[in-house]
Amino acid sequence: MENKIKKIGILTGGGDAPGLNAVIRAITRTAILKYGYEVIGYKFGYRGLYNNDFMPLTLDSVSGILHKGGTILYSSNKDNLFEYLVEEDGKTVKKDVSDVAVENLKNEGVDVLVVLGGDGTLTSARDFARKGVKVIGVPKTIDNDLGATDITFGFDTAVSIVTELLGRIHTTAESHHRVMVVEAMGRNAGFIALHAGIAGSADVILIPEIPYNVDSIVKRVKERDEHGQPFTIIVVAEGATEKGGEVVVNKIVEDSPDPIRLGGIANKLANDLEKVIKNHEVRSVVLGHVQRGGDTTPYDRILSTRYGAEAADMIAEGKFGNMVCIRDGHMSSVSLEEVIGSNKSVDPKGELVRIAKNIGISFGDE
Amino acid sequence: MENKIKKIGILTGGGDAPGLNAVIRAITRTAILKYGYEVIGYKFGYRGLYNNDFMPLTLDSVSGILHKGGTILYSSNKDNLFEYLVEEDGKTVKKDVSDVAVENLKNEGVDVLVVLGGDGTLTSARDFARKGVKVIGVPKTIDNDLGATDITFGFDTAVSIVTELLGRIHTTAESHHRVMVVEAMGRNAGFIALHAGIAGSADVILIPEIPYNVDSIVKRVKERDEHGQPFTIIVVAEGATEKGGEVVVNKIVEDSPDPIRLGGIANKLANDLEKVIKNHEVRSVVLGHVQRGGDTTPYDRILSTRYGAEAADMIAEGKFGNMVCIRDGHMSSVSLEEVIGSNKSVDPKGELVRIAKNIGISFGDE
Amino acid sequence: MENKIKKIGILTGGGDAPGLNAVIRAITRTAILKYGYEVIGYKFGYRGLYNNDFMPLTLDSVSGILHKGGTILYSSNKDNLFEYLVEEDGKTVKKDVSDVAVENLKNEGVDVLVVLGGDGTLTSARDFARKGVKVIGVPKTIDNDLGATDITFGFDTAVSIVTELLGRIHTTAESHHRVMVVEAMGRNAGFIALHAGIAGSADVILIPEIPYNVDSIVKRVKERDEHGQPFTIIVVAEGATEKGGEVVVNKIVEDSPDPIRLGGIANKLANDLEKVIKNHEVRSVVLGHVQRGGDTTPYDRILSTRYGAEAADMIAEGKFGNMVCIRDGHMSSVSLEEVIGSNKSVDPKGELVRIAKNIGISFGDE
Amino acid sequence: MENKIKKIGILTGGGDAPGLNAVIRAITRTAILKYGYEVIGYKFGYRGLYNNDFMPLTLDSVSGILHKGGTILYSSNKDNLFEYLVEEDGKTVKKDVSDVAVENLKNEGVDVLVVLGGDGTLTSARDFARKGVKVIGVPKTIDNDLGATDITFGFDTAVSIVTELLGRIHTTAESHHRVMVVEAMGRNAGFIALHAGIAGSADVILIPEIPYNVDSIVKRVKERDEHGQPFTIIVVAEGATEKGGEVVVNKIVEDSPDPIRLGGIANKLANDLEKVIKNHEVRSVVLGHVQRGGDTTPYDRILSTRYGAEAADMIAEGKFGNMVCIRDGHMSSVSLEEVIGSNKSVDPKGELVRIAKNIGISFGDE
Repeated sequence: MENKIKKIGILTGGGDAPGLNAVIRAITRTAILKYGYEVIGYKFGYRGLYNNDFMPLTLDSVSGILHKGGTILYSSNKDNLFEYLVEEDGKTVKKDVSDVAVENLKNEGVDVLVVLGGDGTLTSARDFARKGVKVIGVPKTIDNDLGATDITFGFDTAVSIVTELLGRIHTTAESHHRVMVVEAMGRNAGFIALHAGIAGSADVILIPEIPYNVDSIVKRVKERDEHGQPFTIIVVAEGATEKGGEVVVNKIVEDSPDPIRLGGIANKLANDLEKVIKNHEVRSVVLGHVQRGGDTTPYDRILSTRYGAEAADMIAEGKFGNMVCIRDGHMSSVSLEEVIGSNKSVDPKGELVRIAKNIGISFGDE
Repeated sequence: MENKIKKIGILTGGGDAPGLNAVIRAITRTAILKYGYEVIGYKFGYRGLYNNDFMPLTLDSVSGILHKGGTILYSSNKDNLFEYLVEEDGKTVKKDVSDVAVENLKNEGVDVLVVLGGDGTLTSARDFARKGVKVIGVPKTIDNDLGATDITFGFDTAVSIVTELLGRIHTTAESHHRVMVVEAMGRNAGFIALHAGIAGSADVILIPEIPYNVDSIVKRVKERDEHGQPFTIIVVAEGATEKGGEVVVNKIVEDSPDPIRLGGIANKLANDLEKVIKNHEVRSVVLGHVQRGGDTTPYDRILSTRYGAEAADMIAEGKFGNMVCIRDGHMSSVSLEEVIGSNKSVDPKGELVRIAKNIGISFGDE
Repeated sequence: MENKIKKIGILTGGGDAPGLNAVIRAITRTAILKYGYEVIGYKFGYRGLYNNDFMPLTLDSVSGILHKGGTILYSSNKDNLFEYLVEEDGKTVKKDVSDVAVENLKNEGVDVLVVLGGDGTLTSARDFARKGVKVIGVPKTIDNDLGATDITFGFDTAVSIVTELLGRIHTTAESHHRVMVVEAMGRNAGFIALHAGIAGSADVILIPEIPYNVDSIVKRVKERDEHGQPFTIIVVAEGATEKGGEVVVNKIVEDSPDPIRLGGIANKLANDLEKVIKNHEVRSVVLGHVQRGGDTTPYDRILSTRYGAEAADMIAEGKFGNMVCIRDGHMSSVSLEEVIGSNKSVDPKGELVRIAKNIGISFGDE
Repeated sequence: MENKIKKIGILTGGGDAPGLNAVIRAITRTAILKYGYEVIGYKFGYRGLYNNDFMPLTLDSVSGILHKGGTILYSSNKDNLFEYLVEEDGKTVKKDVSDVAVENLKNEGVDVLVVLGGDGTLTSARDFARKGVKVIGVPKTIDNDLGATDITFGFDTAVSIVTELLGRIHTTAESHHRVMVVEAMGRNAGFIALHAGIAGSADVILIPEIPYNVDSIVKRVKERDEHGQPFTIIVVAEGATEKGGEVVVNKIVEDSPDPIRLGGIANKLANDLEKVIKNHEVRSVVLGHVQRGGDTTPYDRILSTRYGAEAADMIAEGKFGNMVCIRDGHMSSVSLEEVIGSNKSVDPKGELVRIAKNIGISFGDE
């Protein structure tokens, strides 16, 4: 059965995450060395599939990329071939162009499509599976907020970067007795802020799952003053909200066609704190794009290699329509039908929040 | 019941591992902030317990140590109070001095002893438990070779260091077309070599669990030559052996009372390879003590914090005679009686070895 | 003559810079070990001198701080004792309280005051010298913009951090074919942006010394598109300006008593570029406070140690009223009277800008 | 005049040093972008020149290498074309094959040869210059021991690596109260040990320029014991010698055709110390090959870029027979005739040794 597979295609969709290249490398090496498949990579996610824009993936072309962030296949945030924006009669209209993609796969002799991406990208993968395309999914979310797998690559790297930067902010905060508000990634889930906050010795961690109130934070700042630690580090996830408040829309520079982020919650919170804290300077830092790139941690390189190698095995085993996942520490698979929308978030009563509170970290909710 | 606990003592035994300080910090903070216990730390492991040599542990004294390797309580490799070396009548004799320790605990009013250590240290902990001392164990093995818990702190840091150093060796090996043999920790288990080898893009990984033969390694070097990659990185765990061979005893400098390591297996293997590989320089590097120290990775800081905070909770819950452990990703506990000798080693047919082979890594066994 | 010196005081003023602790350590160790002086450190710069708030500095208290950013003596940005803000009759008035400081020095028996700081802090040092206080200055400017010395500590660390973060931004920019605008420190001088831009492989470097025009930048983006490098990294110093334009005042959050920085020039430029570049996403990152802290580079540790040890020697040699400096690579000294206002900036026709242009970096001025 | 230059060749000889790739990149980019030259790179140093084995160097081929250690042109330690080992009539004989190289340059139309290397490689460069070849030299010595230039690339990176590893050794030494002997590069000059020792907070620094005696070291260990710092870090350069002793020849594995290093001086010294120090474990670490590779520091990237860009300018200016150098901080040039043999070593009475002694570092000479 698996003898019929001769050629596979890989694409990466959505925002980049450290580890994508390691996955591409592991799929390619396993596919070539163990199974003798030919491998190609579509550029810019589904857009490359639509435009038939691809590159061959060989042992050579995946050499030297294990540790590198980003994706050698490039990525695109927006392209959904089932609702693709095309120009027709001078207008931009949404159109289902998925048949073009299916035709391109057929014409190139690509037997299996491996899709690396997050919720949106995998939804399209499922839809291609429904159309009869042999699809294997690999989950990608730097926020680690996918319910269908234990842990995703890129997360450990992001936590490491934020932790290192918290360390840098620490010495300057202490020297000037400042209150520092540091905004980390996490629109819907606070895993990065929670983990980096613990590892980086933050005093306050604010996450979307636990609405905060300013008084509680101010109380913690005062307690620290009284205990001879007159500076405070606050890590706040992008999507954190004040109790009863809403997600802070990032300030927009006027006239900007594509909004430039000026930092939302960190600046709002710093402003709110400044109104009531008079004995400390309050400063904010929005970490932004530096959290995603650069070298991948060893942990993530191994995790990515496992995802990629397993994806290649799943092809040989004919497990199409499934996504690679990790369950209780072991590689496994799950139907793409089940995966979509199965998001995960920090359990406010879970082990890690409890432990963090036990060692004295405030979540701004008391 | 737990109300009766007022004071706890902590000690660290055996070789240091990154994360010990984070455990000490988490125990201390949780004990003080959540439970109101007084905390002291015995210096140099059991020796401090015997000599009643301790320091108070306060919020202040555990401040700023979360990221630091080593142990602020110092450690000792050899002291077993049940077979303690003492001077008597001008001779050194082994003697059971454990009663002195029990007496010291009583006199200081220490209700519970928390012991951080490996197999030897925890064996003594069990023996103290048998004598009626309220003991909590925390597992420490940088090699991650303890069967009773999923993963131990220090391991991720060691893997990260070895991976980084492999990266450094990579560029110089490639520039000179060398065969490099790099010796990593792992006398009984090859986890560090296996993980760092995958993360650091090694070509050959040699571990105690899979005896190697030189011909197989030479074959891989030749294959790489033929594929236009005329250099080879070999990671070898200390305890790796040639098929049919024995563990290489480290060369000893003559007259040395306490043997100085000159590197065992890496130098032997480099020598063996040089005899048969004529078109490459062969070089060896023994990483040694640089693998243990310095800053702890964010991953290990979180893991250690979990171990420490859980240990404090176990005290409050009265779970004496037990060791903190992680099972299927969650904090749990296990009887010290069950722990001793439950070692773990790399499964030669397990997932990670299989994946490594799939992506083309040789284990020298073909 | 120098035998009369028995006790010295140290203070740090202005923003913190990596290396301050290494200077404090080198002064203290040399003063104690070589000269037998007693050493104290005033807290929070001149404010501590005014309040007689100090700590003893011993071999112990300066142990373990060589590599740490920040300052163990704390610092303050604003306190000028010659124009000190004091409450009098319910009003805040400026008052010369320098005599209080002189009195405090005399009462504590402090023979020499060593002042670590930038232009403002050193101006006060000169003024104290004019009042007869025995003062030694040590220059501190993370921007490296002091004319009276070759190079200042903290600069290499700041360049290293910005370079590392540029590397992180690189992989994500390349993966998404983005134009990234990264704001680095440098209000008056562009040294950090220039050096980090070269080391971090930026395509465009914008500094205060060379006004840019948007068209020139857009041209470079297009050239890169045409050469198959469809992404662009722009490093911009805080104080860079458009040709004919003014320094961008950072956006202020309304009602903020102490303005919170939302990022000035990076966001303005990103916005300007977005209006004319349609085939790339444009994103901005304001590095902010992460550029100052954390571990100090080995280069800066050595440089700081040289500054500190030399300062102690200058005390013994009676070179009061002078600042330690480096001239043509060697330790030297210069009168504080000469130092004030002797700023340095990037020479637009100098060697490094020329070399940067030669290797293809744009300064937005063509 | 310079209009006649159309094509240049680059080669790298001797051991690799971090920064070589940055030099190659800067030469290539400046040559192409500013002067319109064609550029090729000979592989494996002079051997490639002899075998006419080269690759084109383009903007593409030097992309992404700025930060990478090693050399994309590969290098060889031994090939001297003026005394080349060739097989003749079944014997290996030394032969002057430099005319073949000259012929190859002519046939390929290479007008200028840029040679990156150390003393041996540059001696050949001078000899080619004497034969009429247009040669430009670029100095390469990771040990920074070349008299003709202020500072060489690779040195800052080596110092940074050794410093980082000293930090790792520090925490484990302190935890176990050990005496650690760490061997760093430096056969003839002790710059790396000196700089890393200061930056890494070593207690004792041993360099070839200052013979040590064991008693002096033991005295320092005891002093530290008495001051409550019962552990000692000793950095020793490869070429350091005991007073009245000789350079320790590295132990050779028997029968090894090409000797494998087992570490010389570090192991000898550890052994010697163990005989007289009874209250501490003594351990040795030989850093070896990990000191040369991996990522280049920002400082070295800039330095290398300056060397490379200047080399290209020197071609255009017709400064053949010269080596690029840095004098008092500025790019300059010096005749290759003057360069050969102009070695530099640490001045035992110089500023840095004096400062190190002032802050309490022992050089084992008291």
